[in-house]
Amino acid sequence: MKPDDFDAWMRQGQAEVEAALQAWVPADAPAGLGEAMRYGVLDGGKRLRPLLVLAASQATGGLPAAALRAAVAVELIHAYSLIHDDMPCMDNDVLRRGKPTVHVQFGQAQAMLAGDAMHTLAFEILTAPPERGAGCDGLAPPERGADFEIPAPLQARLCGLLARASGHAGMAGGQAIDLASVGLPLSEAALRDMHRRKTGALLLASVQMGAACGRCEPAAWRALADYGAAIGIAFQVVDDILDVTQESHTLGKTAGKDQDANKPTYVSVLGLQAARRHAAELRDQAHAALSRSGLADAAALALLADRVVERDN
Amino acid sequence: MKPDDFDAWMRQGQAEVEAALQAWVPADAPAGLGEAMRYGVLDGGKRLRPLLVLAASQATGGLPAAALRAAVAVELIHAYSLIHDDMPCMDNDVLRRGKPTVHVQFGQAQAMLAGDAMHTLAFEILTAPPERGAGCDGLAPPERGADFEIPAPLQARLCGLLARASGHAGMAGGQAIDLASVGLPLSEAALRDMHRRKTGALLLASVQMGAACGRCEPAAWRALADYGAAIGIAFQVVDDILDVTQESHTLGKTAGKDQDANKPTYVSVLGLQAARRHAAELRDQAHAALSRSGLADAAALALLADRVVERDN
Repeated sequence: MKPDDFDAWMRQGQAEVEAALQAWVPADAPAGLGEAMRYGVLDGGKRLRPLLVLAASQATGGLPAAALRAAVAVELIHAYSLIHDDMPCMDNDVLRRGKPTVHVQFGQAQAMLAGDAMHTLAFEILTAPPERGAGCDGLAPPERGADFEIPAPLQARLCGLLARASGHAGMAGGQAIDLASVGLPLSEAALRDMHRRKTGALLLASVQMGAACGRCEPAAWRALADYGAAIGIAFQVVDDILDVTQESHTLGKTAGKDQDANKPTYVSVLGLQAARRHAAELRDQAHAALSRSGLADAAALALLADRVVERDN
Repeated sequence: MKPDDFDAWMRQGQAEVEAALQAWVPADAPAGLGEAMRYGVLDGGKRLRPLLVLAASQATGGLPAAALRAAVAVELIHAYSLIHDDMPCMDNDVLRRGKPTVHVQFGQAQAMLAGDAMHTLAFEILTAPPERGAGCDGLAPPERGADFEIPAPLQARLCGLLARASGHAGMAGGQAIDLASVGLPLSEAALRDMHRRKTGALLLASVQMGAACGRCEPAAWRALADYGAAIGIAFQVVDDILDVTQESHTLGKTAGKDQDANKPTYVSVLGLQAARRHAAELRDQAHAALSRSGLADAAALALLADRVVERDN
């Protein structure tokens, strides 16, 4: 895949995800809730996680409509976590994706609720809507419309992968460690464990959910897991580098925040130059894992790994 | 079922749910998160929603182990919503189930995260854990251990029922209306719509998730939905009555709160006597729906409807 083709691929994927979010995040949720939800997730971000889902699904010959639902679900979990993390009782941030954060715009109560509703919506989007009066059968629920895009066993698997990545052992657990680590010296191992949970788990799940939409052998699945783990850490190393090297207007969020909050980062633990070398090593590990996977159509995944490391915001 | 038998049935169900929560809500989640989660859900509450799940599953010949997972998942969603609703930016309550609320005990950041992690855990408990290196197949994921209690299509259906009841169109949407309604005059229809979402949707989903674990014809499914809708409203009517007729120490939460906050309630809209009559009517509607269902073993559901209306806390 040439760089121009990859840019076009990314733009197309981003447009598909944006259109699906526009369609599925309800404008008419009660009492302004829908407005806050849409503000928190539309028109924003690089959509890295959804692109990973789509790329992994393509690499494994996945069902495109199922992968799109998985992509949107992952982005909703990511967006809900940003809304909650930005709140005054957590990181107390006022700027996100170049806009006032959700609680600044809509108040704390609505922000918390919007995050909660987006969290739930991720699982709604992965599962078929119930038919009214459909009866029930624990072993073989009735087909609920041929127009639903995900076979029931895959719905279950996607829900499980997403839940395990975002819960106490993954993203939420990582955020708890983050809050408890302010001002503490952390070893590189402890820092890596925190970020493996806080950021890495959902990036890894993006790759796995995409791959679950397709077919792959156990060896390829393991290689994709290695790829996902490597870019999960690389993403955070680069985030820490950008926090000290970029301005707020480039990042679209408050720069220098980690340093000001006395949070341990890869830069504070390793130093800037070693952090840069580490990011490049992780990219190489991701490429090596893709080679091991034996998947024919992994070009987009490879270029996404490059983009994770070479981005400037 | 005699009253003594029903009491014994309730105690057994409550004990099973408590044991499952003890086993499945992790004590070792990082940085104190597990402690906050367990504080927020263990040793507390009447476990009405789990009992509805278990009773509906029994009435439809459901798989007991699947029903127990569904029961725990519903209770986790309920408990997360209480933690978030109690926070200072929402209802700002300090007492719940006779104990300091989670944010009073652990701080706001940990309370928000504990709620988030419990929200996710509900969906983890409904879905099989992934086997490491298992490969993938979008149409027929590999069996992940014969010891997992819920067939994959039922995992998907339970996730879907739970998500739709607790999201923007259900519980979270109802809470948004609640926040927006403080100090406003509401019609009975508007009040009913708010509570149908805020409280009723999850009570209804409890019945539906239990029934989904078993087998029933469409007519019985519709009757159970009518039952669930009736007790969902009845529960809130009685809550509003208790808020003005009971003391805090009986309720285990702050009494008179709705009145103090100038929130519309069934008592403020209908008056106390009419609210009491309405609760009794709704109980009768629930009983009639059970008769229509044609289910042989609906005694526990019938007695739970009585208990919803006759409780004093």
